[in-house]
Amino acid sequence: MPDQEEFAFKAGPEGAQPVPRKARSAAKSPPEPRVRPTATDLAKGQRDISVSEFFAKNRHLLGFDNPSKALLTTVKEGVDNALDACEEAGILPDVRVEIREISETRFQVAIEDNGPGIVRAQVPKIFGSLLYGSKFHRLRQSRGQQGIGISAAGMYGLLTTGKPISIRTRTQAKKPAHHLELVIDTKRNEPRVKLDETCEWEKPHGTRVEIELEGAYRGGQHSVDAYIRQISLANPHAQITYVPPRAEEHGAEHVFPRVTNEVPPETREIKPHPYGVELGVLMQMFRDTKARNVSSCLQNDFSRISSRTAAEICKRAKVATTRRPSEIEREEAERLHQAIQATKIMAPPLDCIAPIGGELIERALRAEVKADFYTSISRRASVYRGNPFLIEVGIAYGGSLPSEEPVTVYRFANRVPLQYQQGGCAITKAVASTDWKAYELQHPKGAVPVGPMLIMVHMASVWVPFTSESKEAVAHYPEIIKEMRLALQECGRLMAIYIRRCKREADEAKKRAYIEKYIPQVAIGLQQILGFSDRDRDQVVSNLTQVLERSRSN
Amino acid sequence: MPDQEEFAFKAGPEGAQPVPRKARSAAKSPPEPRVRPTATDLAKGQRDISVSEFFAKNRHLLGFDNPSKALLTTVKEGVDNALDACEEAGILPDVRVEIREISETRFQVAIEDNGPGIVRAQVPKIFGSLLYGSKFHRLRQSRGQQGIGISAAGMYGLLTTGKPISIRTRTQAKKPAHHLELVIDTKRNEPRVKLDETCEWEKPHGTRVEIELEGAYRGGQHSVDAYIRQISLANPHAQITYVPPRAEEHGAEHVFPRVTNEVPPETREIKPHPYGVELGVLMQMFRDTKARNVSSCLQNDFSRISSRTAAEICKRAKVATTRRPSEIEREEAERLHQAIQATKIMAPPLDCIAPIGGELIERALRAEVKADFYTSISRRASVYRGNPFLIEVGIAYGGSLPSEEPVTVYRFANRVPLQYQQGGCAITKAVASTDWKAYELQHPKGAVPVGPMLIMVHMASVWVPFTSESKEAVAHYPEIIKEMRLALQECGRLMAIYIRRCKREADEAKKRAYIEKYIPQVAIGLQQILGFSDRDRDQVVSNLTQVLERSRSN
Repeated sequence: MPDQEEFAFKAGPEGAQPVPRKARSAAKSPPEPRVRPTATDLAKGQRDISVSEFFAKNRHLLGFDNPSKALLTTVKEGVDNALDACEEAGILPDVRVEIREISETRFQVAIEDNGPGIVRAQVPKIFGSLLYGSKFHRLRQSRGQQGIGISAAGMYGLLTTGKPISIRTRTQAKKPAHHLELVIDTKRNEPRVKLDETCEWEKPHGTRVEIELEGAYRGGQHSVDAYIRQISLANPHAQITYVPPRAEEHGAEHVFPRVTNEVPPETREIKPHPYGVELGVLMQMFRDTKARNVSSCLQNDFSRISSRTAAEICKRAKVATTRRPSEIEREEAERLHQAIQATKIMAPPLDCIAPIGGELIERALRAEVKADFYTSISRRASVYRGNPFLIEVGIAYGGSLPSEEPVTVYRFANRVPLQYQQGGCAITKAVASTDWKAYELQHPKGAVPVGPMLIMVHMASVWVPFTSESKEAVAHYPEIIKEMRLALQECGRLMAIYIRRCKREADEAKKRAYIEKYIPQVAIGLQQILGFSDRDRDQVVSNLTQVLERSRSN
Repeated sequence: MPDQEEFAFKAGPEGAQPVPRKARSAAKSPPEPRVRPTATDLAKGQRDISVSEFFAKNRHLLGFDNPSKALLTTVKEGVDNALDACEEAGILPDVRVEIREISETRFQVAIEDNGPGIVRAQVPKIFGSLLYGSKFHRLRQSRGQQGIGISAAGMYGLLTTGKPISIRTRTQAKKPAHHLELVIDTKRNEPRVKLDETCEWEKPHGTRVEIELEGAYRGGQHSVDAYIRQISLANPHAQITYVPPRAEEHGAEHVFPRVTNEVPPETREIKPHPYGVELGVLMQMFRDTKARNVSSCLQNDFSRISSRTAAEICKRAKVATTRRPSEIEREEAERLHQAIQATKIMAPPLDCIAPIGGELIERALRAEVKADFYTSISRRASVYRGNPFLIEVGIAYGGSLPSEEPVTVYRFANRVPLQYQQGGCAITKAVASTDWKAYELQHPKGAVPVGPMLIMVHMASVWVPFTSESKEAVAHYPEIIKEMRLALQECGRLMAIYIRRCKREADEAKKRAYIEKYIPQVAIGLQQILGFSDRDRDQVVSNLTQVLERSRSN
């Protein structure tokens, strides 16, 4: 390539660079005639795409769009896993988050928990393979759902710094701790173990994950600091210790103590509810079931189907209860699917969900902001697409909250704060579409209301429908938005009663002060007209004051 | 389960249903003590998640959120593939889209093309396996990128109707056509062939895909009809025949003829540009390369690296050009990575992109709307994260376009219209952040401008960074937004010149009419004062009119 053709353009995000005219004109000139490919030629290019390659190229889908978000996402995925692990083992979580600045664009993130630890054999796949985990296939509330998060963070670290992810884990005090370093082979979506040793560790059980990555540490609404505050708000049973970078500037160690010593009630795994199952899934279940006949398949593989209900469904579908599931034809499956929708079936069991609870939400809000009024509600569980879910709302009003700005909305899903994509979230939609004018707030159409208020909305479910893999916003299911609005309205009504009482009291105080000011004048007037003594005049003042007092207390 | 405990709740999207008090109180009571799981117990639940299972559960990520969007997405994925196939083989596309209504909620979609056909052996994986295809691993502009689309549509059809996807394909007139029916095994992400036969077909070559699915056919901005119109707009070389459902209502067959007979210039595959390669990827390339030394690896596996440039990079990184790539350590790779960023390297080649071209955009706009003014621009190619891209903008102004409404923005990426997520798209951001007041339009802050205008923005690239797998919006890369704004400004300036000229002409016409009206009065006045004859008076009128004429033409 001749040297004079070389043309410099800057790499990096500073801006798009023009391309030299020469290169452009080359592109414009008709390409030299080439043999057009046939179907056979085209077939040669076809190949499998590994899920890690896919997400490495599309990393913004996982929350690694830019350096500061990458840092936040890494912390988030680590803490999610730490809290899930502790709760599954019934341990009060004690989580430590450390961020060490290596250079301005490079950080080491460490997340350490006191959870049950991880069996050595499972470590490589959990941390070095996307789409691997225990939470996807079960119906039970947890922070993680997809089996992507922490391995994706490790992959991002590897891509940007070439450094492996480091894991230290121990399952019992009497067993040694394991220390592994591994990288993900993105072409195969498989872990490659670089270091595997047993080691000393002062923790009797727990896990510590370390990832080095290109990142940026920033303040504001989307910062790691804001995340840590909010995660502690939604997890009052967890103690979180946070060591920010540059301790000299940001303080050495921030401890967010737990507000309660109770681990959230253990959630149970449930079977799919028949109403949420689609025809294709139903057919797949018939193929895969261990049950010998349709009736027992319906009873065993779904929740809330008794033998009576199974018989009713089969009768309606004109399918014998004794049919072998594997022999069910598509047409029969379709009739069964329709029959299920037409049959009364009990709502799914709800011990798969662990709400925070109204009382704890209020306590957490009191710890978070200085306000005049607090209220909260934990709704009854409800169902979308067969999945149980539950909405909780907390409101803080007045006090130190700014009165001329749009209200702050804290969004949570399964106790995890959602910090990005506020505009695209069902929670924002529910807040914006509630009629806040009825609750004494200013409310610009289509936006969140304006006033001294902080709203916290929490959705707990066995499956939160996120709008992207990075789990930043809840999708707009009408059932979910409806429940959120009902909860907001319930809190709004209580808040409005408080606001109106305050207004009434303020009005009365003003009126009273006004009248009080004139009582002595009235008495002096009476004295002059009727020739009262000074004693009579004072008596009139005291009588009128008493009347005012009485009328006010009514 | 006792019968009286049964409680009916409705399935379906009508709204969330309350759960009976009884069930709720059961959920609230403390769970019976259970043995807490250990790390070993927890390990048993860990397993692989297949990518099809993942997307079946998260189908909204792929554009199957609701029935009407599902129908649109299915059509879109089919047409994308059809156009890509024709262009790769250098064939002028002739695409037929048929939608047949089976019931109000069930449709059969068929997409037929005159492309090169597909080799029999490739059919099952292309249509029955997610993340499989020829477009992901290469750097070259195409509509499809991910190897997900059409198989996901087939999977959605299977899930909702239990019906397989049907494919008819033929590669040459002298060979028979193949007809396959297949379903995706979501647990394994593998195709299962249900029918495999050769058959008669009147087409010498081409492919026809049929998918039956739950859907809804609606009108409006997000409809299939709007999509077909827009795809024809961005693909003036394609003829599209559209058979909507319910022919009696919607017309039997709509033909969108081609505006040009030239197939877009063939795009070439390029190698990654060194500026866009991350450290981790660089290390992987060193491991996988066939080159014997670092210098030839840099030259062969990247675009725009000459032996001179390779030597410069190695020198800067203090790595010998003769080192074996597989022996390069992390630290050396990091030095090489930094050296690449610091070295002047020619911009990537641009024949990997096929713009529509300003002229064709204008022609398409003229066919689309009746306006007074049209302009368009096809920018020079630019680069983000090492990927070449190019922005094109067309504007239609005035005429029949509504003047008091926000302007219409048609968004396109690699010739595919983007219909959803307008708010989250870089194109909308670029339009909203351009100063349209300078171009004589009303422009509410932060929104799109108001006026009789239609804007068409097209991004062509070897890799369009979409905000989700459903490819609905372009991610906010600053380089991309900057290029879009420059293109919009260029068109805006031309439009403003036109608007100002129109205004000036209107002003002058008004002034002229005004003066013309008074010229006879002036002449009569002069006649009376100076005693002109009628002939003199008429002469004055004609002289003054000439003066006016001359001053206007200056």
